[in-house]
Amino acid sequence: MELVGPGAGPMTPFGLDNLPYGVFSPAGGAPRVGVRLGDDVVDLSVLLDDPVFAAPSLNAFMAQGRDRWTRVREQITDLLAGGPPEGAVHPLGEVRLHLPVEVADYVDFYASEHHASNLGRLFRPDAAPLMPNWKHLPVGYHGRAGTVVVSGTDIVRPCGQRKAPDEAAPTYGPSRRLDIEAELGFVVGVGSALGGRIGVDDFADHVFGAVLVNDWSARDVQAWEYVPLGPHLGKSFATSVSPWVVPLAALEAARVPLPGQDPEPLPYLRGSEDWGLDVELVVEWNGEEVSRPPYRDMYWSPAQMLAHMTVNGASARTGDLFASGTISGADRRRQGGAFIELTWGGREPIPVKGEERTFLEDGDEVTITATAPGADGGRIGFGEVTGTIRPATP
Amino acid sequence: MELVGPGAGPMTPFGLDNLPYGVFSPAGGAPRVGVRLGDDVVDLSVLLDDPVFAAPSLNAFMAQGRDRWTRVREQITDLLAGGPPEGAVHPLGEVRLHLPVEVADYVDFYASEHHASNLGRLFRPDAAPLMPNWKHLPVGYHGRAGTVVVSGTDIVRPCGQRKAPDEAAPTYGPSRRLDIEAELGFVVGVGSALGGRIGVDDFADHVFGAVLVNDWSARDVQAWEYVPLGPHLGKSFATSVSPWVVPLAALEAARVPLPGQDPEPLPYLRGSEDWGLDVELVVEWNGEEVSRPPYRDMYWSPAQMLAHMTVNGASARTGDLFASGTISGADRRRQGGAFIELTWGGREPIPVKGEERTFLEDGDEVTITATAPGADGGRIGFGEVTGTIRPATP
Repeated sequence: MELVGPGAGPMTPFGLDNLPYGVFSPAGGAPRVGVRLGDDVVDLSVLLDDPVFAAPSLNAFMAQGRDRWTRVREQITDLLAGGPPEGAVHPLGEVRLHLPVEVADYVDFYASEHHASNLGRLFRPDAAPLMPNWKHLPVGYHGRAGTVVVSGTDIVRPCGQRKAPDEAAPTYGPSRRLDIEAELGFVVGVGSALGGRIGVDDFADHVFGAVLVNDWSARDVQAWEYVPLGPHLGKSFATSVSPWVVPLAALEAARVPLPGQDPEPLPYLRGSEDWGLDVELVVEWNGEEVSRPPYRDMYWSPAQMLAHMTVNGASARTGDLFASGTISGADRRRQGGAFIELTWGGREPIPVKGEERTFLEDGDEVTITATAPGADGGRIGFGEVTGTIRPATP
Repeated sequence: MELVGPGAGPMTPFGLDNLPYGVFSPAGGAPRVGVRLGDDVVDLSVLLDDPVFAAPSLNAFMAQGRDRWTRVREQITDLLAGGPPEGAVHPLGEVRLHLPVEVADYVDFYASEHHASNLGRLFRPDAAPLMPNWKHLPVGYHGRAGTVVVSGTDIVRPCGQRKAPDEAAPTYGPSRRLDIEAELGFVVGVGSALGGRIGVDDFADHVFGAVLVNDWSARDVQAWEYVPLGPHLGKSFATSVSPWVVPLAALEAARVPLPGQDPEPLPYLRGSEDWGLDVELVVEWNGEEVSRPPYRDMYWSPAQMLAHMTVNGASARTGDLFASGTISGADRRRQGGAFIELTWGGREPIPVKGEERTFLEDGDEVTITATAPGADGGRIGFGEVTGTIRPATP
């Protein structure tokens, strides 16, 4: 298939087999919904002339459900193949991108066996790396929905309580072990009722698409606070997401079986469909590639995460965001999704632009990108999630 | 001061020194904001003729800030002292009460030393009851905002994974240890910016008022899942709140010093104002009083909770709800805020309507009420948070 449309050369990661949705404002205009095509944004409120796209978030469209998502994708594909109408197209460099989704609840999982094992070794060196529950359920926790921010938002270094193992009492101050977590996030379009649940094979009826997530983490704050109720201040200061939501339909060619689950999960977590995803992430630290985390190695699938999250009757809402947790491959030096793994808790610095580095310094910039196989034989792109560290507020 | 107004007898817990806000709909009418006076609801969209009260939540009014809250309370007091106008008053029995707040983020703390010690002994019998961090910071975690429901909503028994210590593998099914947690919740009216923070003495500029909270808990699910990232499915199925938000201004006479903090907290947690609260809760199980948890015994104040929650630069939003965690007094048999404490993990059943009981059975009803000293020498009421257990969904 030849890709057409302004800015979309052949083999762009943003061709007609991708069409990720976002929210943008053109110069002087209000936020509205668009799709990315090559290096342009197509204004859907113009292309499709529907008020659901003249909104500052994707939520109203996402709530319309899977049949509607399918129909709109077909319409967009047809209209763009003929060349988009005058006035509907904006070069990416001339628009402002916004948080694409009004986030309802945010849940972060812990679905990489490599990451969970590495963190277990680092946080609890005297115990088994994986907790007894880890292979029976996708462990997760609620994060702070109000501090989910769009890529490009500066990250102010958080302050908080930190206590090193050899210190008698905690001290207060800026985090000294500020880290990233490279993740994939999934956005719920159609929720579920309180007291109901979403079956593991109903994933695609509920989930609209995927985003890149950087779950910034203050490891010193986290290590001191997290027992027994889990991470709180060490994570809640900011979570960045990419501006483009790749629709689930664009990820069909990326679907793969999970690496394998042993023991076999309980029946409510056993699906008949493959929802492993062959997405490859790239982590750049100040412009230098430091890792390539492979999503295909994740132990738990996003369909299992959603089934688990609602099996107790918890309702889901349009705009719920759930993320995979840090994506780390077997080679923690080349595939680790967090600096704490790449540098083994800061004990093994890595070279970044000629300097030996462990955790984030003020002024550092981290950019995560990802690609996956597309329907047209090439690779589709997720765009990027990027952020720069600003000094702590006094 | 003599209390006047329809339904407000001289010592009602809902006199002019209380005036809690809620959202109600009269027969055939849309939801709107009202205040409770005695056994009536006064429609503020009529009394004050302001569109901010013709809304289905308190959020827009709460966002207007403390000066406005003060002015409106004065206006209401003046207008009601003269007898509310015809058409603004509805008997409580003739209206439907709604969730008063559109909940943004929900954070639950763990601020009772007695509760945290009891749970530590029960969940981790071989370790020290309190974790090393507990007296240095108010431990808390994010809960599920989307499953905060108003009093009276039925609670469907959650299903999930449970594993008793003597079982080899987890099983799936309805919770067998369904419990309550009697708490006080605080509602943020005025938020704060990302990268900023709310000082411990700025509490009353940001917090609009307080509600009763029942943080329903499936102890068997929680015990299996909660390491290392904290409670998730064991709590996320439902959290009930009372329909009336008692404004902070009505709690002036209830303010007391904290019982005492040792070690002295870090400076960001040291306030010059007393935000201990002399609120007494009553827990009724199927109509029988089983406990009287004293809020005045809490170790951490709500002002400290809010300061801690934002010290890392996390923004707060209008509608954020943060709760105290279970309120338990020193006498766990008479003042425990959870059945797991009253029955010591189910090992010491208690009599309820002539039966020996441990955890919740289908059909059980739990009602939590509370009162506090009011400005007029009597006691003001929080109303109630109640819920009935329905059987698990197959």
